[in-house]
Amino acid sequence: MDIRQRETVYQHAKAWVYEAGKIIKEQMNNPLNIETKSDANDLVTILDKQTEKYFVEKIKDEYPDHRIIGEEGYGDQLTELDGTIWVIDPIDGTMNFVHQKKFFAISVGILHNGVGEIGLIYDVMNDTLYHVKKGEGAYRNNELLPPLSMNKRLNEAIIGMNYFWLCENRFVDYRVMQGFIRTIRGARTYGSAALELAYIAEGTLDGYLSMRLSPWDVAAGIILLQEVGGIVGNIDGKNWDPLQKSSIIASNPVLHDEIIQILKKGRK
Amino acid sequence: MDIRQRETVYQHAKAWVYEAGKIIKEQMNNPLNIETKSDANDLVTILDKQTEKYFVEKIKDEYPDHRIIGEEGYGDQLTELDGTIWVIDPIDGTMNFVHQKKFFAISVGILHNGVGEIGLIYDVMNDTLYHVKKGEGAYRNNELLPPLSMNKRLNEAIIGMNYFWLCENRFVDYRVMQGFIRTIRGARTYGSAALELAYIAEGTLDGYLSMRLSPWDVAAGIILLQEVGGIVGNIDGKNWDPLQKSSIIASNPVLHDEIIQILKKGRK
Repeated sequence: MDIRQRETVYQHAKAWVYEAGKIIKEQMNNPLNIETKSDANDLVTILDKQTEKYFVEKIKDEYPDHRIIGEEGYGDQLTELDGTIWVIDPIDGTMNFVHQKKFFAISVGILHNGVGEIGLIYDVMNDTLYHVKKGEGAYRNNELLPPLSMNKRLNEAIIGMNYFWLCENRFVDYRVMQGFIRTIRGARTYGSAALELAYIAEGTLDGYLSMRLSPWDVAAGIILLQEVGGIVGNIDGKNWDPLQKSSIIASNPVLHDEIIQILKKGRK
Repeated sequence: MDIRQRETVYQHAKAWVYEAGKIIKEQMNNPLNIETKSDANDLVTILDKQTEKYFVEKIKDEYPDHRIIGEEGYGDQLTELDGTIWVIDPIDGTMNFVHQKKFFAISVGILHNGVGEIGLIYDVMNDTLYHVKKGEGAYRNNELLPPLSMNKRLNEAIIGMNYFWLCENRFVDYRVMQGFIRTIRGARTYGSAALELAYIAEGTLDGYLSMRLSPWDVAAGIILLQEVGGIVGNIDGKNWDPLQKSSIIASNPVLHDEIIQILKKGRK
């Protein structure tokens, strides 16, 4: 992607993310019309849809040749990654949004010919924007995030995950995960993949495991995290594919192998 | 406790909590001298100790007849609850404090003849003070917190807990807890009991389970939570004892029985 064109796209994306955050904040205390998606735990609100629509309209208007992958279905159906693609989650952490009115984020990742170029994760309620242009540094608001530590061991690590790893599941033997919990220093669960990836980038977490995420949950987070030296792949250590749902294992670079080796022991 | 005397104590406590928060914020980016308490996961920093000392000196100076239960050992050894007792955790969520530099709180509960009269939980990095005087309402900063909903069911609830409930443990069969995870809407882990109790009071969480906590972890949170109609007891449904370490099951009033009944099925 041409560097001057990228700067223009980045400035637009940033302005739209802030504007969308403002609208969400203004409207979130109106009684929300909550619909149910695939199951009772996958909530979708009018505001998710409205926010995605807002992005789609802005993008199609300004960049008619760009394509969009979005959670709510207003984007395009893609089978390849040519050209510029916006990968958008209008509200990542919808359960938090609905129940907690905090711990959710707007997530926008922008790829060019399959390469992550721009990432924006906006923690709306904390007014904290994590943002990155590939090769130009990852930032939290105006603060440059340093490269991730190379000295961290797994027994000093705090890992973001969810409780289904410790229940019967089709990915990994939960008894192996019980051992994992005893190995690490601490586990945390915040309920927003975008925020949890941003937390690794800023050092709040050292790793994050998820069994099944969609491209829009993680695109921006992966671009952000890679900029500070983080590693992201699936549960078998393979590369992330922006067109597929997949497991996500993300971490500080020195921990990644160790985590994958433990998961391998319990892999089904 | 005399109501005018209580107001004076409350105003002092609030001023000291804010001042302690300011000191922590100023000093937290100095390289911390981290010591290890009972095990590698129980971290204590110079700032924990210094902050407790600050409170102890202020209290002893202003209220020489008040007694103190504190995490770091600068307080008194108590065997009964006569008179006015301050129960202080200078930094609740020390692991978060050390690793994350957020998600920690100063927790101050004040009892009179065994009754919780005042509670203060200060989320330092968010500058959010949860505070209560028994019978006069629970607040988040200047905002009065409404009574907890009586309409919530367990399958709509978000519960704060930690991963050891899903590992082999001496309290409850982890297989029963696997069922519990599948029953509730979501589980979250933030790593600060004080904040997690405050989160129930404000509705961010609907319940919180912990296997073993000390009085200073929970005193302020219990006083806060009871003011909005929350229920707190131990794993067997018995009342909280401010002189003992104990399990803590705290929740929205309608969920408490249901949670205790599930735990009972797996109780060892």
